Amino acid sequence: MSFAISIGARIRKSPYFDRTVSDGVTAFTTYNRTYMPTSYGDLQGEYWRLIKGVSLWDVACERQIEISGPDAAQLTQYLVPRDLSNCKVGQGKYVPICNHQGYLLNDPVLLRVEEDRFWLSIADSGVLFWAEAIAGERGFDVTVQEPDVSPLAIQGPMAEDVTADLFGDWVRDLKYFWFQQTELEGIPLIVARSGWSKQGGFELYLMDGSRGGDLWDLVKEAGAPYGIAAGTPNVIERIESGLISYGTDTIPRANPFEMGMGRYVDVDLDVDFIGKSALREVARQGPGRAFVGLVWPGETGPACENPWGVFHEGRQVGFVTAAQFSPRLEQFIAASILDVSVAGGAEADRPPVTIETPDGPVTAAIRDFPLC
Amino acid sequence: MSFAISIGARIRKSPYFDRTVSDGVTAFTTYNRTYMPTSYGDLQGEYWRLIKGVSLWDVACERQIEISGPDAAQLTQYLVPRDLSNCKVGQGKYVPICNHQGYLLNDPVLLRVEEDRFWLSIADSGVLFWAEAIAGERGFDVTVQEPDVSPLAIQGPMAEDVTADLFGDWVRDLKYFWFQQTELEGIPLIVARSGWSKQGGFELYLMDGSRGGDLWDLVKEAGAPYGIAAGTPNVIERIESGLISYGTDTIPRANPFEMGMGRYVDVDLDVDFIGKSALREVARQGPGRAFVGLVWPGETGPACENPWGVFHEGRQVGFVTAAQFSPRLEQFIAASILDVSVAGGAEADRPPVTIETPDGPVTAAIRDFPLC
Repeated sequence: MSFAISIGARIRKSPYFDRTVSDGVTAFTTYNRTYMPTSYGDLQGEYWRLIKGVSLWDVACERQIEISGPDAAQLTQYLVPRDLSNCKVGQGKYVPICNHQGYLLNDPVLLRVEEDRFWLSIADSGVLFWAEAIAGERGFDVTVQEPDVSPLAIQGPMAEDVTADLFGDWVRDLKYFWFQQTELEGIPLIVARSGWSKQGGFELYLMDGSRGGDLWDLVKEAGAPYGIAAGTPNVIERIESGLISYGTDTIPRANPFEMGMGRYVDVDLDVDFIGKSALREVARQGPGRAFVGLVWPGETGPACENPWGVFHEGRQVGFVTAAQFSPRLEQFIAASILDVSVAGGAEADRPPVTIETPDGPVTAAIRDFPLC
Repeated sequence: MSFAISIGARIRKSPYFDRTVSDGVTAFTTYNRTYMPTSYGDLQGEYWRLIKGVSLWDVACERQIEISGPDAAQLTQYLVPRDLSNCKVGQGKYVPICNHQGYLLNDPVLLRVEEDRFWLSIADSGVLFWAEAIAGERGFDVTVQEPDVSPLAIQGPMAEDVTADLFGDWVRDLKYFWFQQTELEGIPLIVARSGWSKQGGFELYLMDGSRGGDLWDLVKEAGAPYGIAAGTPNVIERIESGLISYGTDTIPRANPFEMGMGRYVDVDLDVDFIGKSALREVARQGPGRAFVGLVWPGETGPACENPWGVFHEGRQVGFVTAAQFSPRLEQFIAASILDVSVAGGAEADRPPVTIETPDGPVTAAIRDFPLC
């Protein structure tokens, strides 16, 4: 089954859209109401380029929610259950955003761009309305908006060389999630060591949407000696690495402890934040589910277009949310959210589980992330 | 240019998804993180079926935000600038939802399902997070959630006959936006006189997602004598009728007065609601822009994939957000948001404007909705 995606003004085009088209993009999804490339027609080739070389991704759909003004630090801390008191200008932190019941609403990277200016570099959910509502009800003196900022990711083991060739060797000293504002041939941007893979790399936060094509071309040119080519966030590698896909893995609703984000929740923080009492209770009781990997033998299988039920001794114990063949593990792998009754404890003690795929049941072993 | 849409678990499939596939759907968009059919490959044929006959639409992507509990009426009124004190159980109302600055966040139909249970049948934006944030901050005793409810639209001049054949002649007495809960061969649903066209019709709010295929088949069977077939919300008819597409027409941000929704804002209401003081100020000053139609001669033209600039005497005065050839008017038509300097006053007094389309400039006349 293959269907066209409608192109219209309701869904936004990224500043790199035309370049992704000329580079042969074949499929899109939408993400934060923006077209996001999902395939250039060669998933395995793109996978190996990410694992062994360097890949260029249009991730402009990773929108920024900017909180600025005198109360920016206060509002941002209230939105986030992680201690931000030690977050410096130029530093990023991976943070949960939770509602009053402690359920995860997003898992952005937070960037402290200036003392009183924060960006939440968000996954696909309505954080703009969330932050506006809280600011409005609390009467905080802030501006909440989505600025003209569009990330472009350079990912893979050769990404550092490409980025250093573009900007200078100082990028090699950037710590993970730290960033620096700079420009490239007059294009204003932020260079951050970050990205939705575990293969290393950088994200260039383009700060002028009219320069998207120019930036794309400059990165392609610098990456040519390293064999760079356009790719997309890779569904195989993200399962291998256990990266959360908000909205895919967080069904029906999940708390940060279930998703392995417990270390980013400071329930004893001395300032208030949304969901504090609910999260404290989850921390006390321990989470009921766990975000874990599943592995089973096989080279081919159906696509996971809807969550698949996972069973143990006839009882449903969770869902598979994504599944792919792993070329490195040479078996099938899945991301899943499972009851701790099966997914708790040491790997060796966990029972095999049964996944109900559209092609019939398979028996899988429960593994911790990363899978390789 | 045609690209595939990725199918994965992050975007939800409607309960009617399989039936739309077997009925020949060719394209989708996403809407409220749900796949929404946008074409069966024959826009003009689907248009005439809507205008002269009856069409069946999967609009399950029109999700419901349910507010229930002791404080449901209080929260709902606080979210909505329209007086709800006279809204009865079984009655729907078209309402703006605005933020604290008076900007439109959504334009749902509100249904009072029970005394203490409301549904907001939403356009494409994050109202769930918005309502949760307000409820959480205000400490209202409510539950805010998205229930298992998936609308199916029957639209066109023959829709009433089809719906009466299915449910009985009582549906003919339903007033616009009123509804009644019932069932059809054991399928629980609500029948409402509503829908995103001005050709008349009903929406069946399916209340059990597992019965989507059954409901689709029953409606197809009842509609067969009337020539029913699968269609989609029609981009031509919606421009002709001046129906707002939230997110398409509301750029960059719009207030309800600009969008012609001023009559649904009660700025002198004696209870508080979000955006009240900002909206009162807009009401006092009058809106700066207007949502109006544009018409110009021509049978073919480019697709409006991004907003097009509209100019008068060299100055940009707004945007075209959607454009199509109208078979009834036999000319090109567009939805636009324009400064009142050109779009205010009587139609005859308005100057022609220049639209910068990708194929070059065209000169258009400014018309009030509906265009036909």
